[in-house]
Order: sequence, then C-alpha cells, then structure tokens
Amino acid sequence: MPPSASHASKPILIGIIGLGTVGTGVARVLTEHPERLARRAGRRLELRRAVVRDLGKPRGIELPPGTVTDQVSAVIDDPEIDIAVHLVGGIHPAREILLDLLKGGKDVVTANKALLCECGEELFTTARDLGRTIAFEAAVAGGIPIIATVAQSLAANQITSISAILNGTSNYILTQMARENWDYAQALHQAQQLGFAEADPTLDVDGSDAAQKLILLTWLAFGVRAQLADVHRQGIDRLDLSDLRFAGELGYTIKLLAVARLVNQQIELHVQPTLVRRQTPLAQIHGPFNAIGLVGDVVGETWYSGPGAGQMPTASAVVADLIDTVAGRTRINFERLELWRSPAPFSLQPREKIESRFYLRFQVLDRPHVLADIADILGRNQISIASVIQHEPPESLTGSSSANTVPLIIMTHRTTEGQLREAERELARLNAITPPHVRMPVAG
Amino acid sequence: MPPSASHASKPILIGIIGLGTVGTGVARVLTEHPERLARRAGRRLELRRAVVRDLGKPRGIELPPGTVTDQVSAVIDDPEIDIAVHLVGGIHPAREILLDLLKGGKDVVTANKALLCECGEELFTTARDLGRTIAFEAAVAGGIPIIATVAQSLAANQITSISAILNGTSNYILTQMARENWDYAQALHQAQQLGFAEADPTLDVDGSDAAQKLILLTWLAFGVRAQLADVHRQGIDRLDLSDLRFAGELGYTIKLLAVARLVNQQIELHVQPTLVRRQTPLAQIHGPFNAIGLVGDVVGETWYSGPGAGQMPTASAVVADLIDTVAGRTRINFERLELWRSPAPFSLQPREKIESRFYLRFQVLDRPHVLADIADILGRNQISIASVIQHEPPESLTGSSSANTVPLIIMTHRTTEGQLREAERELARLNAITPPHVRMPVAG
Repeated sequence: MPPSASHASKPILIGIIGLGTVGTGVARVLTEHPERLARRAGRRLELRRAVVRDLGKPRGIELPPGTVTDQVSAVIDDPEIDIAVHLVGGIHPAREILLDLLKGGKDVVTANKALLCECGEELFTTARDLGRTIAFEAAVAGGIPIIATVAQSLAANQITSISAILNGTSNYILTQMARENWDYAQALHQAQQLGFAEADPTLDVDGSDAAQKLILLTWLAFGVRAQLADVHRQGIDRLDLSDLRFAGELGYTIKLLAVARLVNQQIELHVQPTLVRRQTPLAQIHGPFNAIGLVGDVVGETWYSGPGAGQMPTASAVVADLIDTVAGRTRINFERLELWRSPAPFSLQPREKIESRFYLRFQVLDRPHVLADIADILGRNQISIASVIQHEPPESLTGSSSANTVPLIIMTHRTTEGQLREAERELARLNAITPPHVRMPVAG
Repeated sequence: MPPSASHASKPILIGIIGLGTVGTGVARVLTEHPERLARRAGRRLELRRAVVRDLGKPRGIELPPGTVTDQVSAVIDDPEIDIAVHLVGGIHPAREILLDLLKGGKDVVTANKALLCECGEELFTTARDLGRTIAFEAAVAGGIPIIATVAQSLAANQITSISAILNGTSNYILTQMARENWDYAQALHQAQQLGFAEADPTLDVDGSDAAQKLILLTWLAFGVRAQLADVHRQGIDRLDLSDLRFAGELGYTIKLLAVARLVNQQIELHVQPTLVRRQTPLAQIHGPFNAIGLVGDVVGETWYSGPGAGQMPTASAVVADLIDTVAGRTRINFERLELWRSPAPFSLQPREKIESRFYLRFQVLDRPHVLADIADILGRNQISIASVIQHEPPESLTGSSSANTVPLIIMTHRTTEGQLREAERELARLNAITPPHVRMPVAG
C-alpha cells in the first residue's frame, strides 16, 4: 500500500515528557512539518500532550490549548497515546517515569544516555517483556545517526574499533585553547558565556559524558555491558596549555578521545585527552562538533561527523526515532540489537594490558645526566623512546642555579599501561624529577 | 520473540547473479559469518546459487558443489530462493535479468547505479506492483551507508544540500597530482597500474559515474528524478596541473565535487572539478575515498566518509541490504522512499541561474592594459573580482617579444553561470587572450 493512502487513517498520538530545549525542538518539528513526517512514517504524528514541571515558564512555542500539562499521568494513563518522547534528565525520577510509560503501553524514545548507561538492562528487558520498544538515537552524538549505523547499516561487520569525539563542550574548549593560546580556565569561561558549557561543566569536562556514550556504543557494537568504573577515564579539566604546545611541535593536536577497540578478543575501553596526528580526520573536528571513526572487519574504516548536541540536531534524532517507531523499524531493530547477547562475547581488557604509544612530560632539574637516568629506567622497562623535546631554558635562567626545572617531553613507542606504570614507580624515586608528571596516550 | 529462537527456522535462500569482485566478496561474508548474519537478520542466510558467465574462471572462493552455475534461470526459476543479489553491470541484459528476478518473486539487492539511474522508474514501479523490493545501498558510495542515512536516519529533515566526492578513481588521481606534482596522464597511468583506475577509465574521470550516483541521491533526498543530461557535468580528464598549483597558492585544493542543492525551491545539480578550501572536510579526503556532506533543515550539517568502492566495502553494503530485506526493514523503507513523489516537489534549476564563485584562468599576452580590459568586461557584467594572481613571466622571457603569454588567474565573487557566460562571450573577442580559458566553481 502506498504510504499516501494511509495518511487518512487515525494519527499516531505522541506525548512528550519534558519540554526543555530538546523537547521544544521536537514539538517544533512535529507541528511545523506534519506532511513530511506523515509521508515518511506512513501515518500522521500528532502531539497530544507535553508534560512540563512548571506550567508558568515560557517555552518559545505555541501549542494547542490543553496540550501542555504538569501531570506525567496525562501521558502514562492516556490509552490513546502510542509513543512517549522521554526527555527527563538524570536517573530519578527519569527511571521510574520510563518504566511507568512502558507499563502504560507506550513505545519510548529517549535521549537520556546517563539513564540507559546506569539502568539500561532493567529498562530494555522491561520493554522487551512488555512487548514495547525503546529507541535512543539521540542519546549518542546528537544529530549524527551513529546508533542506526552501528546497529543496522554495518550489520555485515564485526566492529573492531570505535574512536570518537563524543563531548562537544570539551572539544570546543580544546579548540579554543589551541587556537587562541588560552589556558583551560579561560577557554572554559568563554565556553560558558557562549552557552557551549554549563554553569557546572563537571560531567562534560571530566570525561563522564563521553564515557557514558562510549558505554552505549560498546554495548551495541560488541555486545559488552561495561560500567562507568570500567572505563579508564580522564578529563580535559587538568590539561595544561603547554602540553597542547608541545604536542603541536610534534605534529599533533590533543582531543578528548573515547576509544573502544577489540584486541585479542578483549575490549580496550578508555576516554582520555589523546594526542592525534594533525593530518587525520579527528584532528580536523573543531568547536562543538562530534565525530566517530568506526572500523568494521568487512567495510574497513568509515567516518561520521556533525553536531553532537543542541536543540535541533538532537530533535532530528528524536524525530527519526519517532518515525522509525511508527513505521515499524524500531521493533525490528530493537529485537536484534547486540544488547541481548548473553554471555557477552568479549571480556574487558585489564587496564594494565592496554597498549599505546605515550606522550610523557616531566619537569626535571636542569642538570647533567637527568635524561640518561630517565632513559635508563624506561629502557630497563622495555619502553623505547620515539622522540624527545628538551628546549634550552629561558635565557634569563641560563647559568643560574641548578634548582631550576625545565620540561622534558618524551614520546614512546608502543608499550603497555602496565609497563609504563612500572617505570613510573621507578621514575618517582628520581629526585631530579618534580612530580607530578603528565602522560597521555597517542592515537594510532 | 528473541532472534536466537528463530535461527532454527528454515534459512533464507539467496542467489547471487555475478560472481566478480563484489559478488565473491558477498559470497565470502555469507559463508564466513553465518552466525553473525543470522543473529542480525533473525534467520539464517544461505547461499543457494551463484550465477557466472564463465564456469571455468577461477573465483578465489570455495563454494559447495552445485552452487555455481552459468544459468540465470537457476535463480529466477527456483521458487525456494527468496532474495537475489544482482551484480550484473551495464544496462542490457542487467535490466532484463532484474525484471525477471522480480517476476520470479525475488526481492532484489543491486549495486548497479547506472541501471537504476537509467531504468529506475520502470524497475522500482515493477517491484512495487509485484509486491517486491529493491535495495541499493551499494549503488552509491560503497561502504558508506548514505542511502540509509538519507532515506531513514535524516527522515525528520528536508535535505537542503548534498556536496560529495563520489568517484574514488578521480579523487585518487587528483590526490596524486597534488601530492606528487604529476600531470593528469602520469597520475592516471599510476592509478591504472595500482588498480585504482580501469583500463578504460572514461566513465570515472569524465564525471559520469559521480553524476549517476548524484542522480540517485537527488531522487531520494529531493524526490526529483533527473536525467544524466540534466547534470551540468565536467570531468577531471582535462584538468591542468597548473590549476592545482594556482588553487594551492590561493589556499584551495581541487576536488571532483558532486553537488545537489535546494535553492529557491529549485535543485541545482552539477559535477565539476571544484576549488575547495584547504581547511574544510572535503579537502581532507585523500586517495580512493568518498565523502558526503549533507545539510538538513533540522539537523544542520553532517558528514560521512569511507571507502567508496572495492570488494569488501561494497560487499558490506550488499550484505546490510540482505539483512534489512530478511528482517523486514527494506519493505518498510522501500514503500516510503521519496522515489514515489509525483509530481516532483521541486524543479531543476536552469544551468544559467546556478550561483557560485568562480576560478578563471586566462592565458594572456604580457602587455599593458590586458588586465584592465578583462576587469572592465567582468565589471560591466556585474561580476566582481575577489582576488588576482599574475606572476612575472619566467626570467628568460622578460623583455622579450610581446607575443609571450602568461597565465592570469581571477577569483570572482558570487555570480551566476549566465552572467559569466555573457562575460565570456565578450572576453572571447579580446585578442590579448589566447583561448581556451579555464573556469571552475569554488565551493561554499
């Protein structure tokens, strides 16, 4: 049956829980493009209810009288509403609301990555047991259709590697630090003023947000359920501008990289500021954008990039999920996701086994034999040195007391976290090094 | 029902028509990863028949006895075969075979863009009338899931712009010309030796291949059915190395760009060597890769890149289509594609109305007032000049006869094809210019 014939049938009724930035964007698309959505879904989509906490708050959108309510039950208990758009942040009562929506017979579209990350097993299983679906394209990388790509378009592949910039706030700050020669605090301040960072930016800049998204991608791509504590995680909040400069000298830039990689049937998993070679695709992602590199064992390497957050990009993903749910694709997808693999086909790689090249910066006393001592310790721990930077000390200090320290940068060849940590224990005993030292992995 | 329960049911039987490079890749994935595919499709996929022209030719793959045949009817007439993978090149008998497969009750997966471009209406309509489906992810951009993205993931959007590198051969040649300072013939020769270009590379390097892919994307994104003749098309086969150098001086590189853009409710459509600013994503696509930038009215700008051809990348797309067809997604998608819009929602923009900045190179006599004459003609045609390069003539020629010519490069501000053509008619009358001159659009 051609879809045009079905437009006349009863519309699908939709309830939105949460009419914040994204919710308002979704409501706008639903009300401004009804014909487009009907053509693509095969049925009309009609916004029946939008649930808000504060009825008095202005929303920047006109909805028909009676649409906006402060009662979640107006969606949960309305048997005519087929699909709920769940845009409630945090864990509680977001979890309880989502469960109630499923029990109320609604298929659910959500953008809450933290919730899926923490309570995903319970929520997904409940949905399946009740014959309902949960779609969550908007939970990872905003407007980039990465869930559909991993779960559907690359279905011929075993994904073997995910390398991604998943936090736009961090990427914006790193871009500004590199471009403007600003330190972290200065770049953060500007990001907050321009709305690219929240008043409390902790979850963005400490790597938690990127780690949650990585956990969801890892689950879908590898069938492996990781906890936040399983992700070797470091944020950009303690990144020193000097490291961006030294990385630049070496032909690299620094990105907050989320990595999940299949190595010897184990999954390597981490989110860290990482040196990325300047000519590679990830190094070209500037400002508040996201990018994901996926390697599949059949297709090879593919790249996806775009706006990782924001009102309309996220609304684009939510509405795509709505259309998929109405058209029946979500049901087909949901049953076949790698979410359901049990036992998990791969285990997590112990942190100390993670292999990488490393960037190391030591603050060392400017006196003879320091480099030799460090090189000796690295060498005895089987860590070989790829390159070294040690500049002459600033002129004013030349010839002054040996208590002056200078930065020493060492790029290693491939080694393991474990070996590096062994070496670091020995290095800590050298009194020519002023702690703490800096270390970051190097991509590739 | 969890998909694992259904693995036990009767497998879906598949016939491949054409066991060339891609066909062999598809057969490899089907035979090497049966568990993976069964999990994702919900049913086992079993390769029942592979049809070849020459039974004696070695294939580099072991298939069970009786699988390989030289009779297309072994697929068409086998009522047990559910899906046919159609990998027959060209138009005839590819068209007739595809029609026979549909009439034989098969759902079809094809990679033949030329066929869909020329006979798409007949084939798609026949499929729909017979209750069958045609999936064609592999027809555009190889391993990049661009059909799924346009038709499904960005369904909330009206796509407003497509800018893409769709021909890997041309991009490989352009990359080598720029990197190695080779002329076209030299780069083509190397591309042929390495297997990146065919013995007769015409359809790749003259822009036809990219235009066919653009026509399919345009149909899906805008609901507009264009013919090859509608695409303002120019290849890289007459590109002069000097233009790559001058573009470089101006901060640009040259890419064979396929563009479809919604401007004032009309679709601008062209494939041309185009100046692309060096810092932009398309400029970073090197070698035989493809990349597509899509702008949607909700999501904004998103980017997709990866291997645009090759055995396994294309097989990845074909097998994804097979899985979608088995799982039921293809049926849902096929009915809702913008293919069926009638009348077309937009018209094609007349060529003379296409707006762009332009790169112009004239070969001019090295004598007074030539630049003034050219600038005067451009100015009277409302074309304003953004930048100019005219180098001093090589030293050996300085002071020699006025018959020596030198290159003059002019970058214009935005103007239309029509205005530029008017100006060109006048310029042709200047006897200080040696025809022909070069012109290319500038992206952005």
